[in-house]
Amino acid sequence: MKNILIEPGKEQWAGIISRPQADERELSMVVRKILNDVRQNGDTAVLRYAMQFEGQAPSSLRVTAEEIAAAEHNVDGYLKSAILLAKKNIEIFHKAQQPKKTEKIKTADGVTCWRKNIPIERVGLYIPGGTAPLFSTLLMLGIPATIAGSENIIVCTPPQSDGNVHPAILYIAGLLGLKNIYKAGGAQAIAAMAYGTESIPVVEKIFGPGNKYVTYAKKLASQEGVAIDMLAGPSELAIYADETCMPSFVAADLLSQAEHGIDSQVILIANRADVLETVIFEINSQVETLPRKEIINQNLLNSRFILVEDVSTAFDLLNAYAPEHLTIASRNANKLADLVKNAGSVFLGNYAPESCGDYASGTNHSLPTGGTANTVSGVSVDSFVKKVTFQSLKKKGIKAIGPAVEAMAAAEGLMAHKNAVSIRLKIAEDGL
Amino acid sequence: MKNILIEPGKEQWAGIISRPQADERELSMVVRKILNDVRQNGDTAVLRYAMQFEGQAPSSLRVTAEEIAAAEHNVDGYLKSAILLAKKNIEIFHKAQQPKKTEKIKTADGVTCWRKNIPIERVGLYIPGGTAPLFSTLLMLGIPATIAGSENIIVCTPPQSDGNVHPAILYIAGLLGLKNIYKAGGAQAIAAMAYGTESIPVVEKIFGPGNKYVTYAKKLASQEGVAIDMLAGPSELAIYADETCMPSFVAADLLSQAEHGIDSQVILIANRADVLETVIFEINSQVETLPRKEIINQNLLNSRFILVEDVSTAFDLLNAYAPEHLTIASRNANKLADLVKNAGSVFLGNYAPESCGDYASGTNHSLPTGGTANTVSGVSVDSFVKKVTFQSLKKKGIKAIGPAVEAMAAAEGLMAHKNAVSIRLKIAEDGL
Repeated sequence: MKNILIEPGKEQWAGIISRPQADERELSMVVRKILNDVRQNGDTAVLRYAMQFEGQAPSSLRVTAEEIAAAEHNVDGYLKSAILLAKKNIEIFHKAQQPKKTEKIKTADGVTCWRKNIPIERVGLYIPGGTAPLFSTLLMLGIPATIAGSENIIVCTPPQSDGNVHPAILYIAGLLGLKNIYKAGGAQAIAAMAYGTESIPVVEKIFGPGNKYVTYAKKLASQEGVAIDMLAGPSELAIYADETCMPSFVAADLLSQAEHGIDSQVILIANRADVLETVIFEINSQVETLPRKEIINQNLLNSRFILVEDVSTAFDLLNAYAPEHLTIASRNANKLADLVKNAGSVFLGNYAPESCGDYASGTNHSLPTGGTANTVSGVSVDSFVKKVTFQSLKKKGIKAIGPAVEAMAAAEGLMAHKNAVSIRLKIAEDGL
Repeated sequence: MKNILIEPGKEQWAGIISRPQADERELSMVVRKILNDVRQNGDTAVLRYAMQFEGQAPSSLRVTAEEIAAAEHNVDGYLKSAILLAKKNIEIFHKAQQPKKTEKIKTADGVTCWRKNIPIERVGLYIPGGTAPLFSTLLMLGIPATIAGSENIIVCTPPQSDGNVHPAILYIAGLLGLKNIYKAGGAQAIAAMAYGTESIPVVEKIFGPGNKYVTYAKKLASQEGVAIDMLAGPSELAIYADETCMPSFVAADLLSQAEHGIDSQVILIANRADVLETVIFEINSQVETLPRKEIINQNLLNSRFILVEDVSTAFDLLNAYAPEHLTIASRNANKLADLVKNAGSVFLGNYAPESCGDYASGTNHSLPTGGTANTVSGVSVDSFVKKVTFQSLKKKGIKAIGPAVEAMAAAEGLMAHKNAVSIRLKIAEDGL
């Protein structure tokens, strides 16, 4: 295995934490054309691209209520139970993100200020479908959207080769009460939600992962002023493992990340050479049994296995990398968690594989990639609301803070700002 | 006065809520050149643009500790008291945004998940200076940054014509313990914080308002992956006034907004013709006394005064407009507040002028403009943190949710994801 680094010096860090940069020029041309086409030609363009890219176009973009209802019978019972368990945990975790009540704060005598969560009215969720239907993503986006209270939740997802949306996606839509599901995928689906078509309503914010066309379409839409959750790049996992880790578990976690695709990022940092060696041995042994072995082996060529001198160096490097997922494979994980500064989601200890967060522990799997975890949070109920501030002042309130406002406005040269207070102070002091 | 609209039909709404669109082609060329130059030439370029645009370049970019200490003696006592009062209120309001403790949530037996606020380490605050020093903006950005706990807070602000930073800005920097203040303005200051120079450290997220060059530089930096708070366009105020308003107050508020500049947006919506007439009479009378009369009069030509048939139409139109500031000038304001869906900050009743929120009531004045209030929140402590999720699982935790994860991973075709759970379940069930 290549890419084993023994106590790399700081001058090597930039290379270690760098992400592959895609050349976006061709992508830009293709996606701009699709966006313009859908903006001008609506459904016709969406259907034309479906035919062009997927070899078929649905007879109707909108999924019928009957199709949603039928999904219940097309998902096997064991998977339905699993989905219900995941839904329960994701709901518990995300409901706690919504404040129980709006806290009104008296900042001065007669001055009350508060912040209120107001749902974004129209949101669009993109769910990858076709050959790799990510129904779990509908749980991860649909649950916070419904908790936030968004009135119009639109889902776009490409159908399978039989022309139907994957039943697990429709089953989850049914569970969450989502009625506006459209058989549309790719950049054309993003364009449809950004501009609206005859069938697909325009939304205010677009969520969800996708291939490079989908992501680039979200990038362009956001430059035009449509809000988006984030730009999801290739998935990433970094693991810190020490001598108390379970090497076979660490290997399994790295392999699970590596199966996402050849551009996924996998980094292992260990504090001892024997840990590194044992994990690599385990990887080579476990990979043989996995169906996506070829993707994984290609991915492992780009992965990095790093021995560091001490735990503080390990976390300096991990924080510089700012991974989407960070696993701390150590019995001491809860304490080491305090060293985390930059990461999307953190998995602590030997029994918390990333898979659990991907599906069912309750946390969200829509997370910042590409090093943006240093400033960006994963999707949460917050992503589906605006926090609007309100203030209410009584006469004694304007008396309490008005003179300060007058002084500051005057010092900034804004006399009409000052006057808006003075005119009130005069009346308030007259006691009228 | 032009732009009086009597019960406009829905077909007129798009025109009413539209914002002026700037032609950005020339801006783009100028600002791209500045960004590239600063990226390549660092301090030299920053100083050269200061000389070119402001006619002078500071001998040293960094403000000394002595300059900060001296500011205390250069701000008059009355203004200092005003700043201290504002600081207290802004701190009270923003401290309440930081969770008292991280709430750990048990989503299933043996599965604990939580979200932790982790400060963004390096933030850059841009404070407009020169002829219009907005020291209040340093309170609005510096206070949440320090509450969040950002380790490195950089401030860039252009000096006045005497070569010094406005003393009120340095006084506030001293109060907040901010030590890294740089005499740099314009697009070159944004570039310096985005890329770093010999003097000015690179930051991870850039905050603050500015002229069109500053805003466009932030736009380009954000497209390159630097996080920003928001793109602040021209300031906006919409007022809903009914028969219980104080027309002279409403007029004063509209004038305060209009003095910001000729591109500021002012909209008044009233439910009665006499309210509209009286407010317009008051505007014409009050404007005469104001020093920025010419700017205001130009601005009023672009403003809109609208009579609507009922309160529900008023709020439908206001929500479609999504103003930065919204004042509800009515004795019934607290009840009408429930109708607000899209706004940056809302001012309730006759004694809550926007000026109070601009300076001293406690709410933040960095707010979404241009209609983005439908999806974007104003600056808060949240803007200076990432919310990182953590999870810790015991053996009984993986037993509780592991089988569901296996089922879902298998159904998504991700067998290595399944295996990361299976390998643990085997050991957990063996009780090792």
